[in-house]
Amino acid sequence: MAPPADFGRPLQGWRLRAYTIIFEADTRAGRLFDLSLMVAVLLSLLLVMLESVASFRLQHAAWLSWAEYTFTALFTLEYVLRLACVRRPLRYASSFFGIVDLLAVLPIYLAFFFPELYALVDIRVLRLLRVFRILKLNNYVTAYLGLGRALRASASKILVFLSAVLMIVLIMGTIMYVVEGPENGYTSIPVSVYWAISTVTTVGFGDITPKTDLGRAIASVMMLLGWGVLAVPTGIMTAEMAAQRISETPAPTTRTCHECLREGLQADSHFCRHCGAPLPEYQRD
Amino acid sequence: MAPPADFGRPLQGWRLRAYTIIFEADTRAGRLFDLSLMVAVLLSLLLVMLESVASFRLQHAAWLSWAEYTFTALFTLEYVLRLACVRRPLRYASSFFGIVDLLAVLPIYLAFFFPELYALVDIRVLRLLRVFRILKLNNYVTAYLGLGRALRASASKILVFLSAVLMIVLIMGTIMYVVEGPENGYTSIPVSVYWAISTVTTVGFGDITPKTDLGRAIASVMMLLGWGVLAVPTGIMTAEMAAQRISETPAPTTRTCHECLREGLQADSHFCRHCGAPLPEYQRD
Amino acid sequence: MAPPADFGRPLQGWRLRAYTIIFEADTRAGRLFDLSLMVAVLLSLLLVMLESVASFRLQHAAWLSWAEYTFTALFTLEYVLRLACVRRPLRYASSFFGIVDLLAVLPIYLAFFFPELYALVDIRVLRLLRVFRILKLNNYVTAYLGLGRALRASASKILVFLSAVLMIVLIMGTIMYVVEGPENGYTSIPVSVYWAISTVTTVGFGDITPKTDLGRAIASVMMLLGWGVLAVPTGIMTAEMAAQRISETPAPTTRTCHECLREGLQADSHFCRHCGAPLPEYQRD
Amino acid sequence: MAPPADFGRPLQGWRLRAYTIIFEADTRAGRLFDLSLMVAVLLSLLLVMLESVASFRLQHAAWLSWAEYTFTALFTLEYVLRLACVRRPLRYASSFFGIVDLLAVLPIYLAFFFPELYALVDIRVLRLLRVFRILKLNNYVTAYLGLGRALRASASKILVFLSAVLMIVLIMGTIMYVVEGPENGYTSIPVSVYWAISTVTTVGFGDITPKTDLGRAIASVMMLLGWGVLAVPTGIMTAEMAAQRISETPAPTTRTCHECLREGLQADSHFCRHCGAPLPEYQRD
Repeated sequence: MAPPADFGRPLQGWRLRAYTIIFEADTRAGRLFDLSLMVAVLLSLLLVMLESVASFRLQHAAWLSWAEYTFTALFTLEYVLRLACVRRPLRYASSFFGIVDLLAVLPIYLAFFFPELYALVDIRVLRLLRVFRILKLNNYVTAYLGLGRALRASASKILVFLSAVLMIVLIMGTIMYVVEGPENGYTSIPVSVYWAISTVTTVGFGDITPKTDLGRAIASVMMLLGWGVLAVPTGIMTAEMAAQRISETPAPTTRTCHECLREGLQADSHFCRHCGAPLPEYQRD
Repeated sequence: MAPPADFGRPLQGWRLRAYTIIFEADTRAGRLFDLSLMVAVLLSLLLVMLESVASFRLQHAAWLSWAEYTFTALFTLEYVLRLACVRRPLRYASSFFGIVDLLAVLPIYLAFFFPELYALVDIRVLRLLRVFRILKLNNYVTAYLGLGRALRASASKILVFLSAVLMIVLIMGTIMYVVEGPENGYTSIPVSVYWAISTVTTVGFGDITPKTDLGRAIASVMMLLGWGVLAVPTGIMTAEMAAQRISETPAPTTRTCHECLREGLQADSHFCRHCGAPLPEYQRD
Repeated sequence: MAPPADFGRPLQGWRLRAYTIIFEADTRAGRLFDLSLMVAVLLSLLLVMLESVASFRLQHAAWLSWAEYTFTALFTLEYVLRLACVRRPLRYASSFFGIVDLLAVLPIYLAFFFPELYALVDIRVLRLLRVFRILKLNNYVTAYLGLGRALRASASKILVFLSAVLMIVLIMGTIMYVVEGPENGYTSIPVSVYWAISTVTTVGFGDITPKTDLGRAIASVMMLLGWGVLAVPTGIMTAEMAAQRISETPAPTTRTCHECLREGLQADSHFCRHCGAPLPEYQRD
Repeated sequence: MAPPADFGRPLQGWRLRAYTIIFEADTRAGRLFDLSLMVAVLLSLLLVMLESVASFRLQHAAWLSWAEYTFTALFTLEYVLRLACVRRPLRYASSFFGIVDLLAVLPIYLAFFFPELYALVDIRVLRLLRVFRILKLNNYVTAYLGLGRALRASASKILVFLSAVLMIVLIMGTIMYVVEGPENGYTSIPVSVYWAISTVTTVGFGDITPKTDLGRAIASVMMLLGWGVLAVPTGIMTAEMAAQRISETPAPTTRTCHECLREGLQADSHFCRHCGAPLPEYQRD
C-alpha cells in the first residue's frame, strides 16, 4: 500500500498517460478506449450467450474458443494495466468498478476447475454501467439519482411492507402445505412458500396448483390479496416520486423582484406581481 | 380474574423481575431475553421448514425430534411464565400477542392427535412482530402506522371496489362454466370462479384454460379488464398516500410564534393562529 | 302504458302498502323485506354454485330440485308483485333493476328448453347491488360515486390507451402467428391475439408458449412492454384520483373570519391569520 | 422529385378534387371516402383473421380468395391514386401514413413468393389510426398528446430503469442457467433470460420452471423483486401525469387584466404580471 507521504506526488510519465486513457474519458484517446471497451464487453457477452446454445456451440467450436481466449487475454491485460497505472491499486481493487472488473475475468480462470461456472462470465454486463460515465448523460444521471433518492426515502416503508408480505407468504404457504399436501405437489413448506410467493406476486407459473376445493378457495383469497396489496409499494413509490417531482419543478423560484425582493416570480413576467415594479429581462444560463 | 381492588397493587419480588425481563425491553436482561426469543423463534421456524422436506426428515430424524421437543418445552415454559408474572393473566391471554404466543405452542400438542397439523406451528412467525418493539425502530413504526392509516382511510373505496370485482368474477366464472363446460376443465361454478379470479388478477396459473373460441374471446376481455382495473386500487392507495405524504411534510413547521412559541405556522400568515400575536415577516434563505 | 293524465294520481290501498314494503326500505317492514330478499338471493346463489359441483348434485338431487322450485316460485311471485304494485310497470321493467330482476328468473324457465343455461341464474348476483340502498351506506355511495367520476373523467385517455393496446396486440399476435406457426400452438390469428393479450397483460396462462428463439425474443419484448405500459392506466387513474382527493380534502375552507371575511381558516385556529381578529370556537356538526 | 420552383403552383383540376376527397375529411365526399376506407380496412382485417382459422379456410376457400383479390386491388388502386394526386409523391411515400399505406398492400404481393408472410397484411390495422383524424375527436387527440408528453418527459427515467432491469435479467438468467442447467429446461442463456423476463414482469408462463431448491429460492427473490420494482415505472408515469394534471387545471385562467386583456393571472396577484396595471380585488363566487 502506498505510504501516506506519497499523497502529494502526482502520477507521471507513462502511468499518467495510461491513467488518462484508461480511467478518464475527457481526452480523445480516453473516449476511444472506453468506447472500444464497451464494444468488447458487448461482443464478449454475445459470445457467452451464443456459446450456451448447444447447436451453435457444436457448429462453431473452433473460432469460439479462439475468441474466448482473446477476450480473456484482453480483459486480463486491461485489469493488470488498471492496477499498474493507478496510484492506490488496493483502493481501486476494492472499489465497485474494481470488483466488477475482476469478476469480469475471474470466472474464466475458475472455469478451468469448475467448467459449469463459465457462464458467470456474464456478470461483466455490469461493466456497461460505465456507459453512463462516458456519454456524460447528465440527464440520465439525474434520473438515476432521482430513482435512488425515491427508493431510499421510502426504504423503511418498503421494508415494513416486505416483512409483512414475507409473514403472509410463510403462513399461507404452510396452510396450503397442510391443506393440499405432498400428493398435490406441495411437497414441503419451502416449496409451498415458493408457490405462495408466485401466487401473491401474480406471477402464477402453474407448475404447482391447488387441486382441492379448500386449496382453491385459499388461493383465490391470496390472489385477490396480492393483487390489492400490489397497490401498496406502488403507492409508496409514487407518493415519494410525486413529492420529488413537485419539489423539482418550481423552476423560477429564484427570480426576485428588485424592489420588494419577493421571490418566486414566473419567468415570463414583466412586472412584479406583488408591488408592480417593472422587472428586467429574465436571464437564464 | 383479578378483583378490581387489586388495581393499585404493583407487581413485586420475582414477578416484577420476571415481568421486567419477559415483557419489557428497556433493561439489559430484557433486551437479551427478547433477542434470544427472536433467535429461538427463527431457529424453530427453520426446523419446521426443514422437517417438511421429506429427504431431510428421513436423514435427520434423530436430532430433529429432540430439537422439536426442546423448543416445545421452552415455548411452553415461556408461555406459563408470562401467565404467571403478569398482573391480569386473562387480559394477556386474550391480547393479540397472548393469542400468538399460545398459537406458537398449541399445534405441537394438537399434533399428537392430528399429526398433519404439525406444520401449523409455523404460525409462530407472528411472534417476530415483537422485533419492532425490541429494536425501537421508531422510523419503522411510523411507516407502519402510515401504511395502516392509508389503508383505513381508503377502506370504504376498497370495499366497494372489491365487491364489484367479486360480482364480475362470479358472473364471468358462470358464463365461462356455461361456455366451456366440464369437458374443458371448468368442472363447476366454484372452479370457474377460481379460474376467473386467477385471470382477472393477472395471476394466470394455466391449470385451467379456455379451449373454445368464444371462451378465449371472453378470457381476453377479462384479462384486459383486470389489467385496467388493477389501476383502481393502486389509484386509491396512491392518492391516499400522496395526500398523507403532503400533510406529512408541513413545509413551514420551523416558523414559530415568538409569544406562545408554538411552531408550524404557515409561511404567509401575518398573525399567530394560536395566540393572535403579530408575526414578523417570515424570512426564508 | 299509463296515460299521461294518470300522472297526479298517487298509489292507494294495498298497492301503496305493497310498494312501500317492496320498493322502499325506510319502514320496518320494508327493511325486513329487503333483508330477507338479500338472504334469499345469497342462498339461491349458493344453491346454484353447489348444484354445479357434480358429486354434490348426485348426492343431494332430491332436495336440490325442491329448493330450486321454491326459489323460482318466490322470485317469480316477487317480480309479478313488483309489476303489479308499481305505477308504471313498463318503466320499471325497462329500468336497470327491473331487467336484473327479470334476468334473475328468466334462465330458470329457459332451462326447460336449454338445460345448459341454468347456471346463468347466477346473474341474480346483481340483485345484491340493492344492498347499498338498504344499508344507506352513504360512505360507500360516496366512494362509489368517486370511483365512477374518476373513471368517467379519464375515459377518453383510457380509450386512446386501449385502442393503442388493441393495435399492438393485433400486430404482435399476427407476427407471432407468422413466426411460430400452427405447429407451436399458434393455430390462427385470433388464437395468437388471445396469446398476445395474455402476455401483454402479464397474465401468462402458459397454455400456448413460444418455442422458437425468435418467438421468445419477441415475447420478451412484449412482456417488458406490457409491464411498463401497465404504468399508463395506473398513472391516468391515480392522477385523476389524486386530483379528486385534493379537491375533497380542504375540509375547513368554509370557516370564515367574522372581521375580514377571508375563508379557509384551519379548524384549530383561535385567531384569523390574515387580520389577527379573535375567532369564536369552531362548530362542526 | 418536384423542383423548388413548383412550390407556389397549387393543385388543379381532377388532382385537386381527388386530393380533397382522399386526403382531407372536411367535405362530404371526403368524409364518405374516409369512412368507407375504415370499413374496408376493418373488413379486410376480419378476412385475414378468419382466413387464418384452418377449418374456416377450407370451407370458404372459394369466395375468400375472391374477396382477397378485391381488397388487394382496391388498396393498390387507392395507393396509386394517393401518389398521383399529391404534389410531392416522395414526401408522401416516406411519411408515416405513406409507409403504412404501402405496408397495407405490400405483404399481399410478397405472399406470391413467401406465402407464409400473407398474415402480415394485418399491419394495415395501423391505417385505423386515421380514425382519429376523421372523427375530429379533439378530446381524444388531447388525451393522446397528454400521454405522449408524459412518456417523453419521463423517457430518461424509464430508460435508466429499463437498462437496470435488462442487466438484472441478464445476470439472473445466467445464474439460473448455471443453477438449474439444461436438464431442467434452461437450455441456454438466451432461454434463461427469456424465463427471467417472464418472471420479473410477473407474466409467469410456466413453460420453464425451476425444479431445484436453490433455483426456486432465486426465483422467489426475483418474483418479489419484479413485483416491487413494478412500482417504479408506475411511479414515474404517475408522478409525471399528476404534475401534468395539476398544470392542466390552471385554476385562475379566467382572471384577466383589464388593461392588456391577457388572462391566466394568479388569484393572489395585485398587479398584472404582463403590463403592471393594478388589478381590482379578485372576485370568486
